[in-house]
Amino acid sequence: MKMNEFFDELLMVPGPSQISNRVIQAMVRPAIAHYDPVFFKIFDECCESLKKIFQTKNSDVIILPGTGRISLESAIASVIEPGDEVLNIVDGLFSEWISEMIKTYRGKPIDLKFEWGKPINLEKIKEKLEENNRIKMVTVVHSESSTGALHPIKEIGKIVNKYDKLYFVDAISSLGAIDIKTDEWGIDFCCAASQKCLSAPIGLAILSISEKAWDYMKNRREPPYTFSLNLIKWKQNFIRKPVPRPYPEYPSTHLVYALHEAINIILEEGLENVFKRHKIVGEAVRAGIKAIGLKLFPEESIASDTVTVIRTPNNINVEEILRIMRDKHHVFITGAPPSPHLKGKVFRIGHMGLNASPIYIIPTLSALEETLKELELNFDFGIGVETARKILYR
Amino acid sequence: MKMNEFFDELLMVPGPSQISNRVIQAMVRPAIAHYDPVFFKIFDECCESLKKIFQTKNSDVIILPGTGRISLESAIASVIEPGDEVLNIVDGLFSEWISEMIKTYRGKPIDLKFEWGKPINLEKIKEKLEENNRIKMVTVVHSESSTGALHPIKEIGKIVNKYDKLYFVDAISSLGAIDIKTDEWGIDFCCAASQKCLSAPIGLAILSISEKAWDYMKNRREPPYTFSLNLIKWKQNFIRKPVPRPYPEYPSTHLVYALHEAINIILEEGLENVFKRHKIVGEAVRAGIKAIGLKLFPEESIASDTVTVIRTPNNINVEEILRIMRDKHHVFITGAPPSPHLKGKVFRIGHMGLNASPIYIIPTLSALEETLKELELNFDFGIGVETARKILYR
Repeated sequence: MKMNEFFDELLMVPGPSQISNRVIQAMVRPAIAHYDPVFFKIFDECCESLKKIFQTKNSDVIILPGTGRISLESAIASVIEPGDEVLNIVDGLFSEWISEMIKTYRGKPIDLKFEWGKPINLEKIKEKLEENNRIKMVTVVHSESSTGALHPIKEIGKIVNKYDKLYFVDAISSLGAIDIKTDEWGIDFCCAASQKCLSAPIGLAILSISEKAWDYMKNRREPPYTFSLNLIKWKQNFIRKPVPRPYPEYPSTHLVYALHEAINIILEEGLENVFKRHKIVGEAVRAGIKAIGLKLFPEESIASDTVTVIRTPNNINVEEILRIMRDKHHVFITGAPPSPHLKGKVFRIGHMGLNASPIYIIPTLSALEETLKELELNFDFGIGVETARKILYR
Repeated sequence: MKMNEFFDELLMVPGPSQISNRVIQAMVRPAIAHYDPVFFKIFDECCESLKKIFQTKNSDVIILPGTGRISLESAIASVIEPGDEVLNIVDGLFSEWISEMIKTYRGKPIDLKFEWGKPINLEKIKEKLEENNRIKMVTVVHSESSTGALHPIKEIGKIVNKYDKLYFVDAISSLGAIDIKTDEWGIDFCCAASQKCLSAPIGLAILSISEKAWDYMKNRREPPYTFSLNLIKWKQNFIRKPVPRPYPEYPSTHLVYALHEAINIILEEGLENVFKRHKIVGEAVRAGIKAIGLKLFPEESIASDTVTVIRTPNNINVEEILRIMRDKHHVFITGAPPSPHLKGKVFRIGHMGLNASPIYIIPTLSALEETLKELELNFDFGIGVETARKILYR
């Protein structure tokens, strides 16, 4: 069957996720002043509700304008001073970028490298912390959406806390889909974004900040090299302050309304149900992919439930897969992120937030089978969808 | 007549401005990937159309996530190196903030102070540039919305260009409402925002960057202290580059769709008509205010056509004016911005973008008359509206 331009596409990339109509409709409202108490009520409700998703009572939660990159950068800019040493677990593109950010603020990233897509060795983290007590912070990407690997942030946290370092987690592709216990696991900066597992539009950076993190920021030798992303100023002016709150900056009012509704939807479903849904969908996608005969990029034992990264089959051009998926079947999946390690070698399906549903997963796998058949891959046609369905409707 | 909660308010503050339904509806669309060529087409169209509003052929235009503060900060972070001297014309809150930003990046602001709301002395700028040839850049706020004063950026530009300095203009409250000839007046950084004269939602920073500015940024001694706001990276990765453009960061897709429609509306009206409309509305508001017997904060000869700043009448509490305007008449105007210079002394009406229309100005002045009558100010009731109407419908 030929699709035409009047069919909406399925957007099945690892962020932005699809957005429910309830969330889009929340933006259909007049302009509102960013210093209006009516707006601050919505903003504060967002922060309080997000605390439930971060599973924190002790941290502050703040929403900044920008993408997930801004949540990472605001933390690094605010806490890192020139010369500060940071142990960064590197096994994917997004952890490489964290090193870049640390260098930008004249910190010294100590890259603890592991093979991409393979389990990391916790002993190595311990060794590094044992041999170098100047390390100020340990950084890790929870769900590395370039490789599809999930990192054991609970176990890493135990080590980081034992050595009393700051603990920084990039939870951009996991918060709101995979269990994160910010307080219990001792996470000082937990960084997220609106458009991934929360299924709100792109444009809001979200992060939680512990008391310990605030103490470090307050005790800086000199002020940070940032005006708008200075978290201390945000705390002084914005977090639970009387209105009107003098800025350094402020998030987009319309996007905050959208986020507010997106969070409501998650809390209505219930966090436990949300986590379970992502688990089932992750398992179903991987099982479907393997049944077709494709190979996962990461070791399956550490595969993330929000994104599946698949090795491109031999003799097939990944660009052809993406093109046929989109042009013929109106399903938008994506290739590798901008990294020479992965270019051409993988393609990726995002199944976080709204995407984590049979009504999107089934047609995605169906379109993938059609595409691979057209590209003359030899496999038992129909087996991917059938295998996934059994798990989804188990 | 008693208003009730079902009446929408008029939002008559100096930004955010009201947003037309066409612009809001442009956000009612599915999620789209920020690296989708379909999105980049819209993004590039925005940048090209904005060039018409900036009246530039030689500068690049870029759209960043954030408010106007981010457009200022991205320029300062990208061009200022520690120790760089910057001549900053200071006669209002927003120019004070520019000094703060320069200091944040370890530049040395040389504050050339003038009395708030009074004309600046061009000779003083010449003197400063004559006596200190280390000055790298001159910064000025075009429409100072804290005082309601408009600065002669054309004339300042002549001086700055004669001394071959970088010329930085904060046009946040003027671009898209008041004539700005970026190329002709030699403006190297012209900084704006989505939610002011362009009447799009809060959340996009907009700026134009000249070739000369790029040269300065390229010749830095060391890289800037910013990851996401590094304009050089934006140029390398984003501005007119083949897709998919690897980020440093990216603007909110939904907000870009809204901005795209907001720009269309301005270009449909025609720049000359837009400027004329703001001129007439500015004159009408000031005439109405004076007819009531109130005093403008700035000298009238330099009053901006996008915002009117009014001295609070003696014996009246400005909070009372704002409260009655909002609660009884559903018109939201605002007091002073967060500055001890102005607190309690002034209130402000924004008439930029969509706000610059009789259908909003007439009821605002009408509500103000009702409010002042209730507060027992002695004036010829009705004269404000009548005076403004004569000018609006001249």
